[in-house]
Amino acid sequence: MDEKFTVKIFDIMEGRPEAVMNNSDLMTLGIYPLDRIRISMNGNNVIAIVKSSIEFIESGFIGVSPEVIKILPLKNGDIVSVTISEKPQSVSIIKKKMDKQQLTEENFISIINDIKSNNLSSVELSAFVSSLYINGMNMEEIKFLATQMAKSGEILNLKNKPIFDKHSLGGVPGNKISLLIVPIIAAAGLTIPKTSSRAITSACGTADIMEVLAPVTFDAKQIEKIVNEVGGIITWGGGANLAPVDDYLIQIEHNLSLNPRSLAIASIMAKKLAVGANFLVMDLPMGIGTKIPDHEEAKKFARDFIQIGEILKIEVECVITYGDKPIGRAVGPALEAKEALKALETGEGPSSLIEKVTEIAGIILEAGGVVIRGKGKELALEYLKNGKAHKKMLEIISAQGGNPSIISDSIQYGKFSKLIKSNSEGYCTHIDNNSITQIVRTAGSPKDKGAGLYLHVSKGMKIVKDQPLYEIYSNSEDKLEQSVIC
Amino acid sequence: MDEKFTVKIFDIMEGRPEAVMNNSDLMTLGIYPLDRIRISMNGNNVIAIVKSSIEFIESGFIGVSPEVIKILPLKNGDIVSVTISEKPQSVSIIKKKMDKQQLTEENFISIINDIKSNNLSSVELSAFVSSLYINGMNMEEIKFLATQMAKSGEILNLKNKPIFDKHSLGGVPGNKISLLIVPIIAAAGLTIPKTSSRAITSACGTADIMEVLAPVTFDAKQIEKIVNEVGGIITWGGGANLAPVDDYLIQIEHNLSLNPRSLAIASIMAKKLAVGANFLVMDLPMGIGTKIPDHEEAKKFARDFIQIGEILKIEVECVITYGDKPIGRAVGPALEAKEALKALETGEGPSSLIEKVTEIAGIILEAGGVVIRGKGKELALEYLKNGKAHKKMLEIISAQGGNPSIISDSIQYGKFSKLIKSNSEGYCTHIDNNSITQIVRTAGSPKDKGAGLYLHVSKGMKIVKDQPLYEIYSNSEDKLEQSVIC
Repeated sequence: MDEKFTVKIFDIMEGRPEAVMNNSDLMTLGIYPLDRIRISMNGNNVIAIVKSSIEFIESGFIGVSPEVIKILPLKNGDIVSVTISEKPQSVSIIKKKMDKQQLTEENFISIINDIKSNNLSSVELSAFVSSLYINGMNMEEIKFLATQMAKSGEILNLKNKPIFDKHSLGGVPGNKISLLIVPIIAAAGLTIPKTSSRAITSACGTADIMEVLAPVTFDAKQIEKIVNEVGGIITWGGGANLAPVDDYLIQIEHNLSLNPRSLAIASIMAKKLAVGANFLVMDLPMGIGTKIPDHEEAKKFARDFIQIGEILKIEVECVITYGDKPIGRAVGPALEAKEALKALETGEGPSSLIEKVTEIAGIILEAGGVVIRGKGKELALEYLKNGKAHKKMLEIISAQGGNPSIISDSIQYGKFSKLIKSNSEGYCTHIDNNSITQIVRTAGSPKDKGAGLYLHVSKGMKIVKDQPLYEIYSNSEDKLEQSVIC
Repeated sequence: MDEKFTVKIFDIMEGRPEAVMNNSDLMTLGIYPLDRIRISMNGNNVIAIVKSSIEFIESGFIGVSPEVIKILPLKNGDIVSVTISEKPQSVSIIKKKMDKQQLTEENFISIINDIKSNNLSSVELSAFVSSLYINGMNMEEIKFLATQMAKSGEILNLKNKPIFDKHSLGGVPGNKISLLIVPIIAAAGLTIPKTSSRAITSACGTADIMEVLAPVTFDAKQIEKIVNEVGGIITWGGGANLAPVDDYLIQIEHNLSLNPRSLAIASIMAKKLAVGANFLVMDLPMGIGTKIPDHEEAKKFARDFIQIGEILKIEVECVITYGDKPIGRAVGPALEAKEALKALETGEGPSSLIEKVTEIAGIILEAGGVVIRGKGKELALEYLKNGKAHKKMLEIISAQGGNPSIISDSIQYGKFSKLIKSNSEGYCTHIDNNSITQIVRTAGSPKDKGAGLYLHVSKGMKIVKDQPLYEIYSNSEDKLEQSVIC
């Protein structure tokens, strides 16, 4: 089982030690593609995932990736031994979950360590995500997983505690509410380090929108500095090293179009532990096109988040919101940044936006003791109207390295546009989230920050023939054309 | 979402269309590693699994594998468009199985087609195998899967029906019984096209042993010709295109160290459908180190095989055998070939070998109407003793292209050997299958056909100090040394 092979270095970076061997060599060694092999020379060795090749590598040779060489400094032409290697312990822990047994804290420590060190192959990660989807996790397991995920990366240590946070479960286009909530909360003297994502399948993420106004990529130290200075930040979560293990699992979830409920809860809570949150408002958008189909499921989610919050010592309040239509009228990075900034400048905006923002900000203001129970929403609206939230937003933009004298009217969006009018008359009974997302992505979002859609109608409105329904924007004429036929 | 990239061809063969793009390009396109992308040029396109690279591919370029070029003839420097592509329908069928729903015949047709065309990524195959492990399949699903697997490859059409077959569930070292059973059955005028495997995790497979005596790699047409000529064959199943889809799933099972019971049954029956078997004896070795821990589980397997046999119109008889020690005394390709051939030459051999061979061969002889019920074992022994089985074996060896005048004493085994003696006295209470397998593999099997182990004691035997226990053989002094300390 121990055979000699000549080294060939190949330059494909997959993030983990990998090797390529000829199909026939693998067969005679009794090794399967994607098995782990131990590559040894002079008493030193490295474990790599092996792939099979018919033409690229001749029999007798072994191709190794740069990750292999970082551990075992090999040169082209070196002779190494190859034997099959044991699987990491995590593989048997994944099997344990498949066998419907409860995983222990030690089990999660093993798995998270192996994921972090890139020791698990995508085949094994897929089996883990599949088993979590099928067999789920109980609250204790979710606690262990969230805690270990958080420990796998940086944990923010902010000066002014308690730490407030908000999180939307997603699925609703135009949901730029964080750009208004964060300055309101920070203006009230509370601390809110908002990490957000870029678009995955949505039209654009909060990070994509904020990036129109200021840089959003910061490491943990920079985040701490900015938040300590101005009380708030709107940063891209993927830039800091917060619960980084989550990203490996999200990739596999995405590949499989699976979103195991228990894993989703653990992921969100891991990120909240990483920012040191003490109080969290969970926005649970419900309705067609969201992740929550009905009230039953929304209440179940709410119960679970509150319960896991108690276990992790994060106070969680849940808001079930109607998510079956876009928030505000603008969808797309520049259009949303413009709509958010304009609302901060004027204290006014589409009611769906202002309602949701003041509702959630109000809960945080009350929890922070800034105002008595029942008066939070009012105060949030006041901060919007009296310009304090706007002033704070400009401070945040400045602290993040953006232009502190930016005005909403100066924000550029797509050069090309197309106004879509009604070809009949009637009532607007439904605005479809998925269609809007598809149009905006086809128009070039999130890469083209100017790509987007502006709604001229809202749900329930009477429509006459030739009335403008919505306008699509893009910096590419081609893409604009494609998006029109979506 | 549709961006232009410059083509770079890279020469790694993974069997399916693959592409590599820079990490940052994927991120801005909202594409995850291992997602599918559509690569288009001049109205033609190809779907590929995309990987992410930080260094190998610069932003703006796309690396494509030879499999891509077979479908879309690209040259270095060509400019292509890249968009994210839909997942094949099978991915939603895999999710259906995760959701514990029964899969239909159409579902299995989709999945098998996608596996055969290499349309499913290893992440998706892993999710499929995991869901089969956790949620299982009912008999109807096993029927659909086995039937579609068989249809994915060649189906033998042999002249002399009915077709007889045997199959061992495995896990027992030294199980060279097919080398005796096949010539006994063929000598009686019955048809037995035995396909067998190479060693995967075992010391050696039947194909590895037979290869000491004759070539074992034949395509379907060659198998038909040999079996029509001499009534039997002992061939490597992986060489013919019989239920080839099975191999993809076996790789993933191996990667995960999982052997979903329902999938194992479907795989075995698919291979039997592919050879056109009408009657099958299933050897179910039970005991420590085998795949069946106890009588309860053995009876469950037996019931399942008989039931699926009825559904697939293959008459199945099950034999539960004791598998907690090796069969015969020799383990390793050359040693086993020698032990088998010697038993055919002399009509004698270790009782564990002769007993098992005549038991199973007897059942087939009775089923074939060669002898009345209850007399099959006797007749099988007679064929061994009177040299008819030996004569038939030489015909089979000759038909497979081996030397028809081979004698057991001429079979060479490892140049180097080490005799292990007892360092105390007592009784041999247990011979450990796993330890024997490990020793023989470490000594170089199956690649080194001469590597192996010969037992000088058997279970229950009284042992005195310095009594020879076993001898290890190898063609490598190094490996012999390593195997001694196993």
